[in-house]
Amino acid sequence: MGDKRACARAITMVENGDKEIFDMIKKLYKYTGRAYIVGITGPPGSGKSTVTDKLTKELRKRKKKVGIIAIDPTSPFTGGAILGDRIRMNDLALDKEVFIRSMGTRGSLGGLSKATQGAVKILDIFGTDYIFIETVGVGQSEIDIVKLADTVLMVMAPNMGDDIQAIKAGIVEIADIFAINKSDLDGADKTELEIQMMLDLNDKKDYRPFVLKVSGVRNEGMDILLDKIIEHRKYLESTNKLKDIRVRNAKLEILKLVEDELMSSVMKTIKNNSILEELAEKVVLRNLDPYTGRDKIIELLK
Amino acid sequence: MGDKRACARAITMVENGDKEIFDMIKKLYKYTGRAYIVGITGPPGSGKSTVTDKLTKELRKRKKKVGIIAIDPTSPFTGGAILGDRIRMNDLALDKEVFIRSMGTRGSLGGLSKATQGAVKILDIFGTDYIFIETVGVGQSEIDIVKLADTVLMVMAPNMGDDIQAIKAGIVEIADIFAINKSDLDGADKTELEIQMMLDLNDKKDYRPFVLKVSGVRNEGMDILLDKIIEHRKYLESTNKLKDIRVRNAKLEILKLVEDELMSSVMKTIKNNSILEELAEKVVLRNLDPYTGRDKIIELLK
Repeated sequence: MGDKRACARAITMVENGDKEIFDMIKKLYKYTGRAYIVGITGPPGSGKSTVTDKLTKELRKRKKKVGIIAIDPTSPFTGGAILGDRIRMNDLALDKEVFIRSMGTRGSLGGLSKATQGAVKILDIFGTDYIFIETVGVGQSEIDIVKLADTVLMVMAPNMGDDIQAIKAGIVEIADIFAINKSDLDGADKTELEIQMMLDLNDKKDYRPFVLKVSGVRNEGMDILLDKIIEHRKYLESTNKLKDIRVRNAKLEILKLVEDELMSSVMKTIKNNSILEELAEKVVLRNLDPYTGRDKIIELLK
Repeated sequence: MGDKRACARAITMVENGDKEIFDMIKKLYKYTGRAYIVGITGPPGSGKSTVTDKLTKELRKRKKKVGIIAIDPTSPFTGGAILGDRIRMNDLALDKEVFIRSMGTRGSLGGLSKATQGAVKILDIFGTDYIFIETVGVGQSEIDIVKLADTVLMVMAPNMGDDIQAIKAGIVEIADIFAINKSDLDGADKTELEIQMMLDLNDKKDYRPFVLKVSGVRNEGMDILLDKIIEHRKYLESTNKLKDIRVRNAKLEILKLVEDELMSSVMKTIKNNSILEELAEKVVLRNLDPYTGRDKIIELLK
């Protein structure tokens, strides 16, 4: 898989919004599309990272090159990923054919989606066969990122409390495969039943997601889980659904890029004067409402 | 607190992006700013809702009018809140001076922030003293919403696994008060120690967040927790920091409104032709890169 250091440098440039790297991606874009993208999500504590690691090892047994992009919660003020180069997957990190990168969620105006999608393209250009995008599957923006995958794997664990019900419900429609991790714990059967029941309610007519009990820590069921991912891929390819998914994802990507670009113009426009500060002061003093404040900024853009 | 049904109707109009209601908010905006906004966040399973309920009951003992906006995970396809009018806080729901509303997280292009902020203004106009905004504190967009509060309360629970470490780290900088819920469980002291250690590392020079052990279910420590919220409010008011926070929040609100407005123009522009679909098809066939696709849409807006 190319030169890992060159790849790392390219992704850093993507994160920094460096124009040069995007020009390079544009030129090489026609060579992408070969990598298969798997979104891995699930609530905190479900063991997503362990499952990702073990799936990576299975893929390595099958001589595949793997990229892992782990989306980390970000410090809201510094903007950097908190876990940084987190100490995980140590033995994988030494593997020349495995590339691991943590990316931080940025502020709401930032471009995590742009950076993640850019990193996917870089990994694709560098010859990666499978790319895992791993996020904590609770927040809307994280779900939006994982939706950009070809196959979405949801990692659950037993006994995760009431809020998890809501999260399961929120993600049941986007997951293609459910892995119930920590299957040795009491409650795994109950969780499986709950998911099956939710799937009964949310029946997609032509495809019913797999539900599988696994144990990341004990390394049980990982080969079957990988087989299910590949089975789902073959299903999408043979029915031409993969193209539909990728068209839907490309639409979302383009719209997100448009949003980032427009907001970046806004930031440039207001950077060199104090208008935002002045408007916000007036809003707090109740001399101006925020909607009129918005209109004044939009007026400036014209 | 005004007429609860009228209030509910107004918030529905806000959610639907109804122009009339925003015109009304503009007119009445000068009467807002009296309500105190408390963001309540924390990982799934920490018991945020129970803590919110119990704090509401404490405020009712003190004759305060309370509004609760609970942000729910949304179905990514239907866009509606999954839990809907969730069956919680039954006895509170009967209280004339308590208003409870669930709001769904929308798609990434939608306006949850706009809807939440609009609902806050409505509740403020209707004479609410305290407004709780409750979110699952994991995703970036949810954190962005809770940041718009005057005081941020983080609800934790013992023994929540590794990912929680990251979440704690991510939110430690925005929380003003930490409530360690389920304090009867083993591990509560350890969690408290961990938070104190993180606060040592992230020392805000002039204000150190409170850390408090409570039990929502046993109703232990809720009066003290409310006192701490009020103490924090008094601190912000007496140092004039409340104004600084509200100016910062007003800036973020205006920028988010600008973003929503610009994207709504984009959606109008592309709605009546098939350009996005065509561009996305080309991107998938590798005849066009998404960045050039973005530029073509931005060209259309000019």
